[in-house]
Amino acid sequence: MSGGHSGRRPGRSGTREAILDAARARFAEVGFDKASIRSIATAAGVDPALVHHYFGTKQQLLTAALDIPADPAIIRAAIAAVPDEILGETVIRTVVGIWDSPIGVQAVAAFRSLLGGGDPTLARTFLVEVALKDVRARVDSPPGTGTKRVVLAASQMIGLLVTRKVLEIEPLASMSLDELAATVGPTLQRYLTGELDL
Amino acid sequence: MSGGHSGRRPGRSGTREAILDAARARFAEVGFDKASIRSIATAAGVDPALVHHYFGTKQQLLTAALDIPADPAIIRAAIAAVPDEILGETVIRTVVGIWDSPIGVQAVAAFRSLLGGGDPTLARTFLVEVALKDVRARVDSPPGTGTKRVVLAASQMIGLLVTRKVLEIEPLASMSLDELAATVGPTLQRYLTGELDL
Repeated sequence: MSGGHSGRRPGRSGTREAILDAARARFAEVGFDKASIRSIATAAGVDPALVHHYFGTKQQLLTAALDIPADPAIIRAAIAAVPDEILGETVIRTVVGIWDSPIGVQAVAAFRSLLGGGDPTLARTFLVEVALKDVRARVDSPPGTGTKRVVLAASQMIGLLVTRKVLEIEPLASMSLDELAATVGPTLQRYLTGELDL
Repeated sequence: MSGGHSGRRPGRSGTREAILDAARARFAEVGFDKASIRSIATAAGVDPALVHHYFGTKQQLLTAALDIPADPAIIRAAIAAVPDEILGETVIRTVVGIWDSPIGVQAVAAFRSLLGGGDPTLARTFLVEVALKDVRARVDSPPGTGTKRVVLAASQMIGLLVTRKVLEIEPLASMSLDELAATVGPTLQRYLTGELDL
């Protein structure tokens, strides 16, 4: 892949890859919570400051290690900006908008390889600790129900991803964002903010 | 696998496997609709009557070729027996009941290999032509909306399968059938029989 006509890029890319490999190994070995940036840096043979420099937070390092092309922080910011009453349709428009964009192909591929892999720990950690974290705190009403609410919403979004982008079943595969917002949006809205007998 | 102490079973099993291999190849080549039992029998070097004898209908042959352990006909019969008003919770109780049963492990494995495979055609065909067929006709109100309704319901069920049985995300992984019927049942009920602005 690397042409070799730059003295710096192969080295940089080698360091980046070494950090990602070390991160994947540590996350798998001891779990996301117990894997410290310091221990990942040590395993990769680099200074911890370099890990922060390349990848930012531990959440961002996990996102990079899982090869997820969209920055979850951007999605979370878009969702944080809207009032509760339109949370459901905003999640649909923002997330499906990314799947349908040019980087969507890579996002779908990352998801398939997560599903096909033997150990679901990293995928679970990504969803619970990164993708769903902000929304969970926001919809925790009554207190203690936030996790159940976001995981129910995730179940609908994951199924929509599989139906629309992996199996490509019509008419869901070609439905417009407006139609999806009108049909699937209310499901998410109920899971996130509705009465659920929880 | 075969111990060899029976003279008949290896031969039978060889014929069965030859038919299944031929079916998978024909379904992939020309699609489910155009693949005839006769052409599958010819490819397997057996009489078409033997294909019917071993596998029944073409739908049942597809179910066997995809290694799906539960007979969709049994699920469909259970769902056909209930009134429209409890369709949603009945689908949850019947289908999740199978996932949670001893044959559920194999059902989940079959689903994962469908998702991981390169060509989603067979999985799509199984869902549209076999699993969802009866319900689609039943919920086709107003006329022409049946397919959209069952595919929306399938998107929620597939996501529930991934969340509960593949990624095993809590609290969905341990939720009782009663809780699932109360929380996810209304989603299915709305998709299948509710107002959807379709």
